[in-house]
Amino acid sequence: MISQTTEYALRAVVWLAANPEKALTAQQIAEATRVPAGYLAKVLQGLSRAGLLHSQRGLGGGFTLARSPAALTMWEVVQAVDPLRRIKSCPLGFEAHRAELCPLHQQLDDGLAMIEKAFSACKISKLIDPSHPSSPLCAYLPKAKAGTNGRRSKR
Amino acid sequence: MISQTTEYALRAVVWLAANPEKALTAQQIAEATRVPAGYLAKVLQGLSRAGLLHSQRGLGGGFTLARSPAALTMWEVVQAVDPLRRIKSCPLGFEAHRAELCPLHQQLDDGLAMIEKAFSACKISKLIDPSHPSSPLCAYLPKAKAGTNGRRSKR
Repeated sequence: MISQTTEYALRAVVWLAANPEKALTAQQIAEATRVPAGYLAKVLQGLSRAGLLHSQRGLGGGFTLARSPAALTMWEVVQAVDPLRRIKSCPLGFEAHRAELCPLHQQLDDGLAMIEKAFSACKISKLIDPSHPSSPLCAYLPKAKAGTNGRRSKR
Repeated sequence: MISQTTEYALRAVVWLAANPEKALTAQQIAEATRVPAGYLAKVLQGLSRAGLLHSQRGLGGGFTLARSPAALTMWEVVQAVDPLRRIKSCPLGFEAHRAELCPLHQQLDDGLAMIEKAFSACKISKLIDPSHPSSPLCAYLPKAKAGTNGRRSKR
């Protein structure tokens, strides 16, 4: 349902949201989110082009979120890199179905509409909720262990 | 969200459900559903292997649905050809997240769960509901015009 590219983009955005103190390099984000560096570089370019990230070259440079995690939704990230396309007209091109989709394509579009609604309602800030036992991304160990052998303790 | 393969499989199943009188050849189904014949042949093989279609060789042979449209769901068709996989464990492989997904992967899985629920509740018979203005597949013209220039009138 969600492409590899979208999943990687969401991981990167969540990681940046959870680590706002300074710009992070593509390599740092790739390691934390366990995404191949070359693949992630392209995903980060896509997010930057879509205006979701700021990037700065040079020493101390890297990527930061262009918007507050509280003002950015999962849906916007999905649509920025590998958009889910609602079914607006008959995929078979039947003119006669312009006014109304057939039940099959209506059902498929209803599924897409549910996903759009759920992901539009989910702010990135919700995904880094510190009260969640496994927050904010898989790269973190649960808080009980953080600081002992969690990735965070090494940074 | 739904792959090309899945969309084609659903078209084929809906077409067979709407035309139960006799077996249809791959070529007939490909034309009606506007799917490239070579591609559709593979999709039909997949559906047959999954036990959703019966196929019979020779004169008068072809494909028929193995089950009643009232006993077959959209979800079963999706899962037969290009399954949507629920997220059961951390995609980053973190042992510490075995017990509970992080909020990102939980949210993604919640989306998958919604689709599973909706498509599981949708029987193929619902997709060929004759009371629908554009039923049962895009290859049909609306009932008002059927019998004049609709595909059905040519068969």
